[in-house]
Amino acid sequence: MCELLGMSANVPTDITFSFAGLMRRGGQTGPHADGWGIAFYEDKGCRAFHDPRPAARSEVAQFVRSHPIKSNIVICHIRRANRGRIALENTHPFQRELWGRPWSFAHNGQLKGVKRWRLGAYCPIGSTDSEHAFCWLMEQLRTRFPTAPSDRELAGAVAALAGRLSALGVFNMLLSDGRSLFCHCATRLAWLTRRAPFGPATLVDEDLTVNFEQETTPRDVVTVVATRPLTRDEAWTVMQPGELVVFRHGEVAKQPMGRATRRAPRRAASAVMEGKAA
Amino acid sequence: MCELLGMSANVPTDITFSFAGLMRRGGQTGPHADGWGIAFYEDKGCRAFHDPRPAARSEVAQFVRSHPIKSNIVICHIRRANRGRIALENTHPFQRELWGRPWSFAHNGQLKGVKRWRLGAYCPIGSTDSEHAFCWLMEQLRTRFPTAPSDRELAGAVAALAGRLSALGVFNMLLSDGRSLFCHCATRLAWLTRRAPFGPATLVDEDLTVNFEQETTPRDVVTVVATRPLTRDEAWTVMQPGELVVFRHGEVAKQPMGRATRRAPRRAASAVMEGKAA
Repeated sequence: MCELLGMSANVPTDITFSFAGLMRRGGQTGPHADGWGIAFYEDKGCRAFHDPRPAARSEVAQFVRSHPIKSNIVICHIRRANRGRIALENTHPFQRELWGRPWSFAHNGQLKGVKRWRLGAYCPIGSTDSEHAFCWLMEQLRTRFPTAPSDRELAGAVAALAGRLSALGVFNMLLSDGRSLFCHCATRLAWLTRRAPFGPATLVDEDLTVNFEQETTPRDVVTVVATRPLTRDEAWTVMQPGELVVFRHGEVAKQPMGRATRRAPRRAASAVMEGKAA
Repeated sequence: MCELLGMSANVPTDITFSFAGLMRRGGQTGPHADGWGIAFYEDKGCRAFHDPRPAARSEVAQFVRSHPIKSNIVICHIRRANRGRIALENTHPFQRELWGRPWSFAHNGQLKGVKRWRLGAYCPIGSTDSEHAFCWLMEQLRTRFPTAPSDRELAGAVAALAGRLSALGVFNMLLSDGRSLFCHCATRLAWLTRRAPFGPATLVDEDLTVNFEQETTPRDVVTVVATRPLTRDEAWTVMQPGELVVFRHGEVAKQPMGRATRRAPRRAASAVMEGKAA
């Protein structure tokens, strides 16, 4: 299984602390040694770093870790290949443009038969089922909305499409258009919002503690989303299978109307407080 | 005026030597201090690094310079903003996917009125005339060729489209689909093919010499394309206004039939040998 990491913030924020923990799982504390990638949204633009080398030994990862890039939305993925060889073109997050917005997509799971689903304007560059699913999703949105819909309409459509993809297998997904961070949970995804009063946080995967009070202003709101909780001393919310949560400016956005979002999130603070992934 | 740098090679090759020279022009030996970007093609994939900061002071540029990424095609651009503010979304090379290929585009010049040209499936993310021109070009190719044409047909189409864009102003361009490197000269573009027997080369912009004999094998063929020659002791070919040259595997590809390519390239070795840009 791959590992996902996302961030949504109301001010440009760096993700080096969470990234440090995740990168350890890329071939060191975890088996996800088949490449990694990260997309940073900065205002209207988006830049990504991809490396088909194991994250734990990647020089690009070292660079990203030691040079904080401040961003409002981040999507990061470390890969354990199951479909598609280890290669740059198969390294998430995948990116496409729609309505003049740079979209990024990272997926963990398998989607049996998705490659038989018909595509339109977007074609995969690599050979993963994930990129095929992303191209299909983009085409569905493009066909349904020739111009950009409201954020709320869009969230509903993404929820419905994520539900259809989920029917093919396991679909844990992070998706962004630079405005919203769409998080779909099939089996494993958890999130945590940090806001004042800030306190210390300690990584599960590395002996590293940060006191966010020294790193933030009282108005900062930052949500981190991850396959498994990254810190041992904070209360993560574990998502339900089939649930889509949308974050905007660091906060949970008003829930869309889509089928996949009916269930309420469940708090699992106690398990997480002990440093166990739920 | 912005500066362009491209590479086409028959084996994965790093571009750190030429990159070192170009980056000095980004705010140090040149005025191109409004960001820079580089796209590396590796097999079917493509990864890019973008930074809206001046190249000469960019930590990302330092990283790219000191960590050789081996690639068959490279497109690099350092920017002097004239249309569109200094921002990540306005930083070349721009990227889109067509026929399952990752396309990259970098432009220097202005194209008056191009923003009135109608677009289709591809929309600009930023506000430059360059990205608008790229989106238009991609749409024209997509409409004309629903599936990928032959390399030769494609080169002819790109030449014709480059000719139409040129009519609006200055259109020096590097473009790639990961197979070919398309180079269009409006005012300034020069290229150089290195092959055995290799010799030493000295940068114009920095006191740096490389002996390629030690860096290469006898079968390597590497072409470098740049706005102005980057070395003082090699024989660069200066392109003609209106000319399109296509490189594949480091060599000049058979010329397309397009209108923009009728004139033969002119050798300007002597001027270049003295270290002067033609």
